[in-house]
Amino acid sequence: MGEFELLARIRERLPAAGSRVQLGSGDDAAVTTPGDATATSVDALVEGVHFRRDLASPAQIGHKALATALSDLAAMGAEPGEAYVVLGVPDDFGEDACMELLDGMIALGEETGTTLAGGDLSRATELFLAITVVGHAAGPQELVDRGGARPGDAIVLTGALGGAIAGLKLLEDPALETGIDLDWRVGQAMGGSTRQATEKAAAALRRRQLEPTPRLGAGRALAATGATAMIDLSDGLGGDAGHLAERSGTALSIDAEVIPRAPGSTELLATAGLDRWQALNAGEDYELLAALPPGRLDRAKRAVGAEEGIALTQIGEVRAGSGVEIRLPDGRLLEPVGFDQLA
Amino acid sequence: MGEFELLARIRERLPAAGSRVQLGSGDDAAVTTPGDATATSVDALVEGVHFRRDLASPAQIGHKALATALSDLAAMGAEPGEAYVVLGVPDDFGEDACMELLDGMIALGEETGTTLAGGDLSRATELFLAITVVGHAAGPQELVDRGGARPGDAIVLTGALGGAIAGLKLLEDPALETGIDLDWRVGQAMGGSTRQATEKAAAALRRRQLEPTPRLGAGRALAATGATAMIDLSDGLGGDAGHLAERSGTALSIDAEVIPRAPGSTELLATAGLDRWQALNAGEDYELLAALPPGRLDRAKRAVGAEEGIALTQIGEVRAGSGVEIRLPDGRLLEPVGFDQLA
Repeated sequence: MGEFELLARIRERLPAAGSRVQLGSGDDAAVTTPGDATATSVDALVEGVHFRRDLASPAQIGHKALATALSDLAAMGAEPGEAYVVLGVPDDFGEDACMELLDGMIALGEETGTTLAGGDLSRATELFLAITVVGHAAGPQELVDRGGARPGDAIVLTGALGGAIAGLKLLEDPALETGIDLDWRVGQAMGGSTRQATEKAAAALRRRQLEPTPRLGAGRALAATGATAMIDLSDGLGGDAGHLAERSGTALSIDAEVIPRAPGSTELLATAGLDRWQALNAGEDYELLAALPPGRLDRAKRAVGAEEGIALTQIGEVRAGSGVEIRLPDGRLLEPVGFDQLA
Repeated sequence: MGEFELLARIRERLPAAGSRVQLGSGDDAAVTTPGDATATSVDALVEGVHFRRDLASPAQIGHKALATALSDLAAMGAEPGEAYVVLGVPDDFGEDACMELLDGMIALGEETGTTLAGGDLSRATELFLAITVVGHAAGPQELVDRGGARPGDAIVLTGALGGAIAGLKLLEDPALETGIDLDWRVGQAMGGSTRQATEKAAAALRRRQLEPTPRLGAGRALAATGATAMIDLSDGLGGDAGHLAERSGTALSIDAEVIPRAPGSTELLATAGLDRWQALNAGEDYELLAALPPGRLDRAKRAVGAEEGIALTQIGEVRAGSGVEIRLPDGRLLEPVGFDQLA
């Protein structure tokens, strides 16, 4: 089956387009009626760099590719609109695998209100994806960039960190699951035995690595409650906080001890021989880091809880100066090293 | 040098953003204030499939990638706005090569009024590019899709065909240049000897393959003068005409003999042992094929000449029915086979 036949099969599978899409996949270009402002982001995912085919199913690869792209729209506080998908397909990744990959993307698209509005296919020697996402807003002033943090602002974090790297370690070595030694009270709180709680935690960690959740609701809630700067944590806390600090022309002071950790991740990382603090810089948790005037903190916590069902935690503050200081409990500072794919 | 340093070096090189771009490369997403309608298209270019590094310079690869993407906007009659670039970079494609590739893209961007507004980089085992382009229009009705051709419409073509495949053959075998046996009158008309004319024609054919011109001015002129359907010829005349016929629910009747040929291409193809008619289906000429009410023909010819300095030729007409008929001078029909990358 050739490119055109596969594209036709893909188009048949696509659900109805969103109301902004006047002309979807199948013409020279998609035609949309955008909001007064659009946020557009592109992301590349390459086999062996961003995912491993022996650890992730095609549907999970599709999910993750779209999720990481949408995470950038979440970090702007944009309403997701359209996604455009480029797929480089090696000979040993068949048509059914392509359709499965697409299904993973369609499912997340439906969940988030994102229309797959176009794409392109090519032969390739390795599997790669390039995803473009377009989000909408009533005007440019509704969107939150990285550059508006001011001294005195609170630094807030959605959800918990460390889950993605713990999930990766667990996928690479399933025996590490026995290293998750949850307190019996966690099992009780989750309504089962410690063993069941361990299994649930392990499944959640794997999901965290393979099927991350773009924090779109939290991003819009933070934008609406007055976030002055925002970024998603794709490359790791130190590196991404550094981007926000640099663009804002401020310093960031972060208290590592108050950062919520994904359940089970700390024990698992210890068993895997990874430093729990360094793990903060491992990236791929796709939580949001934002700066917020302290007076908006309570409202933002309620809004993020209502929109996304997760906690918003103050983990530091913005100060005059430059750079990022991540303080550890023993007084040392964590080197804010980014996760650099081309290094 | 890592991804972030290379991205910073790239951002330094970017010219000033267009007026629609509120926030360019370097944040989670680019922020733009779009027109009331946008046309968005994505294109993948993969080493060994769409280009060869031994035949094209990095700047030419960059030019061609952006040109093929912009050609889709030309086929909608859209005004080009922004481009987003994903680059998969193998180890043997260094930083300087990346910058050269970018320079090729920037030059075409400036020529066409396209802002490079964002991108992503990844390591890869082969060089690949994925380009997203966004064009703007005052409303969806200003844009021309493939589906509006009506029986009785004239089928028109911008420029000439056959240049891209002839250029490819010439790049693969430079000795073919001696096969270009131009009439001495062509040399005279070009203001020099036959030898000089041959060299000029050869250079033009190579450029046609390596640095195609997106027909943006012609596309807008055709849209403004009432084109009912339009497509760019990337995959070959037969295949692309077939897409237009299918989406319009009509038949297309094309007279192969009246199709203008790139100077020198017919002789060269004959020397290379390629059928001159089959060459019409080789693709990559990136000319525009449009349907147009016959009453608009003269106006459209003048507008395309004024905007783009090229001819617009009627090569057939739209009829009731389905399918594409490409008539050859001997009465045979040319099989309208598309150029299928995944075949």
